[in-house]
Amino acid sequence: MTEPRESKSIAHHVDAERLWRRHMELAQHGATGNGGVNRQALSDEEVTARRVLVGWGEAIGLVASNDAAGNLFLRLEGTAPDLAPVLIGSHIDSQPTGGKFDGAFGVLAALESVEAMVAAGARPRRSVDVVAWMNEEGSRFAPGMMGSAAFTCARKLADILSVHDAVGVGVATEIAKVLAAEPDLPGRPLGFPVAAFVEAHIEQGPILEAEGRTIGVVTGIQGKRTFRVTVTGEENHAGTSPRSARRDALVSAVAVVQALQQAMWDDADVVRFTIGRFDVTPNAPSVVPARVVFSIDLRHPDTDTLRDLGDRIPALCAAAAGRCAVEVRELLHDPPLTFPDAVRDRIRAAATDLGIPWMDIPSGAGHDARYLHYHCPTGMIFIPCLNGLSHHEAESATKDDIAAGARVLAETAFGLANQE
Amino acid sequence: MTEPRESKSIAHHVDAERLWRRHMELAQHGATGNGGVNRQALSDEEVTARRVLVGWGEAIGLVASNDAAGNLFLRLEGTAPDLAPVLIGSHIDSQPTGGKFDGAFGVLAALESVEAMVAAGARPRRSVDVVAWMNEEGSRFAPGMMGSAAFTCARKLADILSVHDAVGVGVATEIAKVLAAEPDLPGRPLGFPVAAFVEAHIEQGPILEAEGRTIGVVTGIQGKRTFRVTVTGEENHAGTSPRSARRDALVSAVAVVQALQQAMWDDADVVRFTIGRFDVTPNAPSVVPARVVFSIDLRHPDTDTLRDLGDRIPALCAAAAGRCAVEVRELLHDPPLTFPDAVRDRIRAAATDLGIPWMDIPSGAGHDARYLHYHCPTGMIFIPCLNGLSHHEAESATKDDIAAGARVLAETAFGLANQE
Repeated sequence: MTEPRESKSIAHHVDAERLWRRHMELAQHGATGNGGVNRQALSDEEVTARRVLVGWGEAIGLVASNDAAGNLFLRLEGTAPDLAPVLIGSHIDSQPTGGKFDGAFGVLAALESVEAMVAAGARPRRSVDVVAWMNEEGSRFAPGMMGSAAFTCARKLADILSVHDAVGVGVATEIAKVLAAEPDLPGRPLGFPVAAFVEAHIEQGPILEAEGRTIGVVTGIQGKRTFRVTVTGEENHAGTSPRSARRDALVSAVAVVQALQQAMWDDADVVRFTIGRFDVTPNAPSVVPARVVFSIDLRHPDTDTLRDLGDRIPALCAAAAGRCAVEVRELLHDPPLTFPDAVRDRIRAAATDLGIPWMDIPSGAGHDARYLHYHCPTGMIFIPCLNGLSHHEAESATKDDIAAGARVLAETAFGLANQE
Repeated sequence: MTEPRESKSIAHHVDAERLWRRHMELAQHGATGNGGVNRQALSDEEVTARRVLVGWGEAIGLVASNDAAGNLFLRLEGTAPDLAPVLIGSHIDSQPTGGKFDGAFGVLAALESVEAMVAAGARPRRSVDVVAWMNEEGSRFAPGMMGSAAFTCARKLADILSVHDAVGVGVATEIAKVLAAEPDLPGRPLGFPVAAFVEAHIEQGPILEAEGRTIGVVTGIQGKRTFRVTVTGEENHAGTSPRSARRDALVSAVAVVQALQQAMWDDADVVRFTIGRFDVTPNAPSVVPARVVFSIDLRHPDTDTLRDLGDRIPALCAAAAGRCAVEVRELLHDPPLTFPDAVRDRIRAAATDLGIPWMDIPSGAGHDARYLHYHCPTGMIFIPCLNGLSHHEAESATKDDIAAGARVLAETAFGLANQE
């Protein structure tokens, strides 16, 4: 695969200092005391951060717009503006104790990519839209990836608008607030045709760092199934009820968890099995627990393995629950997906041409790219993050790696935008 | 042991219907939808329930008072009011999902006992105080038995006042609220001399029911040790972090719990080992847990066994915690105790005289009588409860057993109050 000569010069217009400065500036919106970011979806901090992005885009002639799901677009118009555009970007909402790079890097690298095209005087054939998807994290309004789900019709807009946060504020109210703060921006329809989508992101894992590679060409996103397990026993007095008379929900839940851990164990360490939430009722030191409700998060890159492992869960729970009743409810089943070669080849070629060391890598985490994958040819570019840490205030990435990621994204996007 | 003739007539003045009605009336204060009671210590529901008790007492000439720890007294003045009084009673605070009888029975049976003395025209030599101790349950403000602990100097009042509930409300604030709601009540000093204390209570276990006995003459209270175990790992992403890189606090905590359960197992089923509270941080489905804090409640009637089992806990936790750090903190070590023969003999004699079937029985649960035992001659009277259930909205006892318990208490208290 060869790129036109002017392409090479685009990557050279990526300004590492400016890109780094913008990461630090954006992180001021929702900055925490520990150097992290608390900029949850549709918060006031996100409103001001969006305005900063719009300002940076308009300064170089990009046209800002938004849609009914609160997604934000900054368009570099192509020479054939009637063709479906290429979208590049990610999200700028964060976890409550998040970092400066998860999501923000993908949006700022996309902005830097079109800024480099502008600086190089290299106008692409198709328009290129920088996009910031609404509520990827899902920490305030669950589940996440709402903006990309609504855009691609994976979820109905009406369903998303009816979600409320922990204190009862609705998505509908907060999207209305965000759009009201951007009265100068024209609206875009949901689900318009897209030629391709590329998302750059920190890896959120330790592999690139360990392998000494700067770019991860993401092969796909592993599948994910989630369950809610309810173990029901009987409340009793800790001092008076003999063990033989108890139906202790915690005793049964612990046995169930150990049985599941054993069954999900794989020597290759590919299965991702996590019990992250575990709630005991009544949760009092001198009361034998009556109920335990816990979550299961199961992920695997192979469709059949994910199906088989997940399908075993109800029987495993029932067998290990002892005297207590157990109920298993599946909440989500997203099969694994593989990004198309057409996009992955372009990313590999861009990295190779620029002399940046790369490797193929699967994505353990979900991303907006999951939903876009079913809407248009999609790919992802990873860069290393310090110690593999993410969703953490100490999350970090280097100036050089960020710039390298932006260079590969700029070349990839320009190539895709010049396609027929 | 012989009782004066008029004593026998006291028991005959116990009114089973009135006593039952008062249980139902008191249960309206904090009534739950499932027929239980949520009347936690120092709550507004307890304030109104105290006022009802005061009203019942004043209607028969009892003098109400309270003390700085929020204990409530209703005094039947004796013919020798300068002598140390006999105290009878229990508590009226409940677990969050408690029943109508735990605690309330002991207070209402005590009130019925003095009402029977009044009705019989049998004024005792010593005054008899009906008492409702503050915060026996310890579910809102931990640990429990606060009022009796402060009264007997087992704990300093200042320490108790500095305790806060889960939402940050302090005992000091809530006691001030309770006392402000009783401006007509004179204050009593903590720790005044007491001639004897007798507490009637539901058994909270299945033994009396199984043995077909109406009265349990409580021999003593088993010992209790409590611990707080903190397991510390590292927060991580459920989708991206390999098992080999995780320090999952829940995985380690589950292993620790199973190791403890195994070590505390006894064929005779005498050891009472309970993990009632288990809190996970950050407790989010897609985040590998960083920390688990859980409670241990260990009880045994034998001093040496309790000491040996409890002393093994730190080493057992450390050995099973795997990659996580574990810290064990002991919160309480109450050795087993035996009530004096002088009080037990009186209870046995009263039941025998009244023709009510009784048996000796140990107490598995802690009670305010534990602290009073170290302050004055103390005893306890148990009655059966349905299926041994307590700390439960379905907790139940029969009208006949309640009346029988009150009759034995009335005779016992009258006998103690006529002592030199």
